[in-house]
Amino acid sequence: MKGDRSIYFVSGNRGKYNEVARIAETFGLRLKWIRRAKREIQSDNLREIARRAAKDLSDEIGLPVVAEDSGFFVDALGGFPGPYSAYVHRTIGTDGILRLLRSVTLRDACFKAAVAFCEPSSHPISFSGTIEGTVSIQSKGNHGFGFDPIFVPNGGHGRTFAEMNTSEKNSFSHRSKAFSKLFNSLTK
Amino acid sequence: MKGDRSIYFVSGNRGKYNEVARIAETFGLRLKWIRRAKREIQSDNLREIARRAAKDLSDEIGLPVVAEDSGFFVDALGGFPGPYSAYVHRTIGTDGILRLLRSVTLRDACFKAAVAFCEPSSHPISFSGTIEGTVSIQSKGNHGFGFDPIFVPNGGHGRTFAEMNTSEKNSFSHRSKAFSKLFNSLTK
Repeated sequence: MKGDRSIYFVSGNRGKYNEVARIAETFGLRLKWIRRAKREIQSDNLREIARRAAKDLSDEIGLPVVAEDSGFFVDALGGFPGPYSAYVHRTIGTDGILRLLRSVTLRDACFKAAVAFCEPSSHPISFSGTIEGTVSIQSKGNHGFGFDPIFVPNGGHGRTFAEMNTSEKNSFSHRSKAFSKLFNSLTK
Repeated sequence: MKGDRSIYFVSGNRGKYNEVARIAETFGLRLKWIRRAKREIQSDNLREIARRAAKDLSDEIGLPVVAEDSGFFVDALGGFPGPYSAYVHRTIGTDGILRLLRSVTLRDACFKAAVAFCEPSSHPISFSGTIEGTVSIQSKGNHGFGFDPIFVPNGGHGRTFAEMNTSEKNSFSHRSKAFSKLFNSLTK
């Protein structure tokens, strides 16, 4: 894929779109937003979820589609909330995670993202990215979305993702790593 | 559907199969167990999950299939863990729910089940059942599975589902209500 073709990013989440559009720009790509929730299979596998979503939608609309799935994995909770992070955030929220970790000292966690790109009637390609860190003691910051206010990435000087602006978060994030691999493969 | 035809119940959960086989017996139906996890779409809608699973598998194997999906909904947690109960049980478990509800006095909760039956190349039929109750202060009992040790059904004299044997649980349960409606419709 070369030149000026557009890529269509499906997501119901404005925060994700903003992050990804910024990354696309740095690769000289135009990202168009299909603002709707991607169709999801129930699976523990982020990459499988992203691949199926990209494939189904690209076949449906006849355009090149990129879909992403990501999750927040807390070691002390057996990987919870993992692939169900969006649902868990809507229900028990960041407070619920902090409550589950009250008096827990081992607070290792990571964010993972998988991204898949598919052209109509073709097979998807996919990439993933991870950022390790810890769960903060309390919620901090107003940027970002989801569990950003309670995640302190390694190398981030003790600040949560929600205390960083988009470009600083992109210099660390799981999503940025996954999308950079994709955009790199599409533009080389 | 009359007479002696078998129905195939897909589930990876032996506890569920045991409960449902007992209910089927009371309707004079033979339930055969397809011991594998049903294929699940990611949805907040139990009935949709059950219908799609029954339809897909019955078309695949050419036999009449029954599939069930159920969830545990805690009012004070915005309905969490809901349709993702199995995953939440595997990760944070009953202890996680008790931890989230520590010092919470309004402990209303319910179990919901949806069941769908589908014959090959046909449309599924589906039914649902609910049992209201409360979340106990601590885990009690060894019967059942999942969140049974922390759920006290209304009318159950303060005991949890896990303190009841299968036939007593079936006299209350969401699952029993949904399956009784289905089996009633299949045998009348």
